[in-house]
Amino acid sequence: MSYIKFESEKLRSLCYDAFCKIGFSAEESEIITDVLILADLYGIKSHGTQRLARYYQSIVNKSINLDAKPEIVFETPVSAVIDGHSGMGQLTAHYAMTLAMEKARNVGMAMVSVRNSCHYGIAGYYTKMACDAGFIGISTTNSDSIAVHTNSKQAILGSNPIAFAMPADPYPFWFDAATTVVPRGKLEVYNKEGKPMPEGWAIGSDGKVSSDAEHVLECLFNKTDGGILVMGGNTEEMGSHKGYGYSMICEILSAITSFGNTSNHFARVKGQGSTLCHSFIVIDPKIFGDAELMKKNLSVFMQELRDARRADENVPIYTHGEKEIICMKKMLKEGIPVNMSTVAEMIDLCNNVGLDSTKYLGDVDVSSAKVINYDKLYK
Amino acid sequence: MSYIKFESEKLRSLCYDAFCKIGFSAEESEIITDVLILADLYGIKSHGTQRLARYYQSIVNKSINLDAKPEIVFETPVSAVIDGHSGMGQLTAHYAMTLAMEKARNVGMAMVSVRNSCHYGIAGYYTKMACDAGFIGISTTNSDSIAVHTNSKQAILGSNPIAFAMPADPYPFWFDAATTVVPRGKLEVYNKEGKPMPEGWAIGSDGKVSSDAEHVLECLFNKTDGGILVMGGNTEEMGSHKGYGYSMICEILSAITSFGNTSNHFARVKGQGSTLCHSFIVIDPKIFGDAELMKKNLSVFMQELRDARRADENVPIYTHGEKEIICMKKMLKEGIPVNMSTVAEMIDLCNNVGLDSTKYLGDVDVSSAKVINYDKLYK
Repeated sequence: MSYIKFESEKLRSLCYDAFCKIGFSAEESEIITDVLILADLYGIKSHGTQRLARYYQSIVNKSINLDAKPEIVFETPVSAVIDGHSGMGQLTAHYAMTLAMEKARNVGMAMVSVRNSCHYGIAGYYTKMACDAGFIGISTTNSDSIAVHTNSKQAILGSNPIAFAMPADPYPFWFDAATTVVPRGKLEVYNKEGKPMPEGWAIGSDGKVSSDAEHVLECLFNKTDGGILVMGGNTEEMGSHKGYGYSMICEILSAITSFGNTSNHFARVKGQGSTLCHSFIVIDPKIFGDAELMKKNLSVFMQELRDARRADENVPIYTHGEKEIICMKKMLKEGIPVNMSTVAEMIDLCNNVGLDSTKYLGDVDVSSAKVINYDKLYK
Repeated sequence: MSYIKFESEKLRSLCYDAFCKIGFSAEESEIITDVLILADLYGIKSHGTQRLARYYQSIVNKSINLDAKPEIVFETPVSAVIDGHSGMGQLTAHYAMTLAMEKARNVGMAMVSVRNSCHYGIAGYYTKMACDAGFIGISTTNSDSIAVHTNSKQAILGSNPIAFAMPADPYPFWFDAATTVVPRGKLEVYNKEGKPMPEGWAIGSDGKVSSDAEHVLECLFNKTDGGILVMGGNTEEMGSHKGYGYSMICEILSAITSFGNTSNHFARVKGQGSTLCHSFIVIDPKIFGDAELMKKNLSVFMQELRDARRADENVPIYTHGEKEIICMKKMLKEGIPVNMSTVAEMIDLCNNVGLDSTKYLGDVDVSSAKVINYDKLYK
C-alpha cells in the first residue's frame, strides 16, 4: 500500500485542530491528540491517526457522546468505579488514570475501573502516564467479541489487551499486547493483500483452523461462528488455556469490577453510546522501599536480557518498549508514514469540519486511495 | 508408568506426620501438607506429594532452612517486603498471603512481596486462600532459569507462573499457569517415556526448535544454551513477545519489588539456602461496591463461556478451575494415584524419619520402582 510521510507535528496540529472543531475543549483535544500521535510514533499504526475517520463517524452518529463527562459512581481511598457515559475513551481513560495516580500517591496503590466507555487507543498510553511519574502502571480494556476460547467456535472474548509499565534506564519496561494471537487489524491487512494467514491465528465458521482472513472477518462481522484464537492457539498442548486465562483476567479487571458489559455483551449503538470497560492500576514502588534502587535493579536485569546469547546472531534481542523508542526516534526525524486511504480520510475530515487540509498535509494526490467502508467492517 | 491409588487422608497423614518428625511444628506441618495435598487433589501431580523426597533432601542438605522464620523488612499499610531466610516456601508464602489479606481487609487492596524463599508449591493455593475469603487473589513466583526469551538461546527467565482467583458460583475463577509453553516437568515425562516432544516447546543448544527432551533437560542442567520456550513459542508471529512479557511481569512483581534475585541469579546452595521470590496481591471486591452482585455477574459470564458453541461437539468447554474441582471430587472418592517411584520414595522417607510406612501405604511392592536421582535433574 502506498503512503506519504508527514512531520509528526503537522499530524499533531491536524488532529488537535480537528478535535477542537468537532467540539472538544482545547485541553480535551490535546489529550486525545497526544494518545493518537504516541501510537503513530511508537509504530502502532492501527491505533494512531488512522482512526480519525472512525472516531469522527462515531461522534457524528453518537455512539461516542461528545458532551459526556466521566462520573465517579463508587469510590474509596484506593479505588473508584467510573461511568464513562459513552464519552471519548481517551478522555475517560486519562481521567481515570489520573485519579488512580492521585490515590496511589496518597495510599501507595490504587485501582480505578471504568464502564460504558469507548475505544481508548493504546492501553500503553495510560501505563506510560503512570510510568513517567515513577509508578508501576497497569491498564486493561475489553472490546467487541472477536476471540474464541479453548474449544469454542463462538467468539465471546475481546482482543483484551493487558498493558504494564515500570520505570527503567535507558528504556522503561513497557508491555502492551492483545491476549489474542493477533489483533483484528492483522487479519484486515492479510485480507487487503489477499494473502493466506499463517495457521494458528484464527478458526472459521466450521470450528477448524482457517487461513482465510476474509472469511474470518465476515464471521466476526456477522457474529456467526469463527474468530481469532487466544494466545496459545486452540489446543492446550500449546497453551491455549493460558491465553484464555489472561483474556479472562482482562474481562474481570475491566468489566466485572466496573459492573459493566463483558465483551460478548458489547454494544456500540448509533445514538446510544458504547459499553467498553477499562481498568487502571497504579503501584508506587516506594511502598516496597528504595524506588531508585528498584529501578536500577530492573535496568540491570533488562540489560542482561538484551545481552543474552542470540538464537540467530543476526537478529537482535529486545526488551519490551525498546522497539517503540527506536521507532519514535526514527519517526520524529523522518516523519510518520500515512497510507493513502488514511490521507484521503484526513482530507475528508478537514473538509467536513471546516479546516484547510493543505495547511497540514500540503497538496497531495489521493486519487489512488482505496475508500474503506467502516460500516462494513465494524457493526 | 505403574501407580497405586491411596486415600487422600492416608497421604495427608503421612505428609503431616513426616513434616512433624522432620522438625516442623504441628501448625507448620499442617500448612505444608495442605498445600501438597491440594495439588494432588487438583491433579497437579508435579507439585503434590511427589515432591516430598525433594523437600526432605533439601532440608537435610540445608538449601531449605528448617528453623527460618519469615521477616518483614519493609512495611506500609498496603504492602510488605518479606525476607524468607530460605525457610520452607509454603510457610513463608502462607504467612505472606495471610498478611496481604489482613492489609486488604483494612485498606481494600494490598501487595506483599517475598525474597530468599524456597519452592512454594502451586501458586494457586495462595490465591485460593484469598478467594475463599471473598477476595480477588493474585500470586506469582520466579524459579530457576529454564525459559528462553524471544530470539535468545540462553535461558534467563523462570517458569514464572501467574495465578489469579476470584469467587464465582458454582466454581471460582481459578487460573494458575506457567508463562512458558510447558513446565519442565512435561519435558521430564517425555524424557522418561522416550517420546519426541511436539515442536514449539523448546529449543536446543543450537538455538533451533528441538523435539529431544533429554537434550533440552541436559542443557538446563548444565546451564548451556537451550531451554523451554515462553508462551507463544520463539517467533513474534505467534506471540512469543507476549509470553516473554508475562514472564517479565512475573519477575517484576516477584523479584524486582522484593529486591531479590531474578531467575537468572537464582541460587539453591547446600547449606546456604535458596533465593526464590514470590508476590501476593489481594483486592477486596467491596472497594468497587456490591461484592455479591460482582460475584453473580462473574458467575453468569463463566456460564456463558461454558455454554458457548463447541468447535468439536464431543469436547466440552471448561472455565478455569473447573477441571480441578472435577478432579478433586473424583480423587476424594477413588483415591489419589501415586506412581511407583514416588511410593518408593515415601517408604524411604518414612524409614529415614522413623515412621512405619505400612500405617499409611499398606504393604506395597515397590520392586518395580525406578529410582530418580534428583541431584542429576536439579542443581
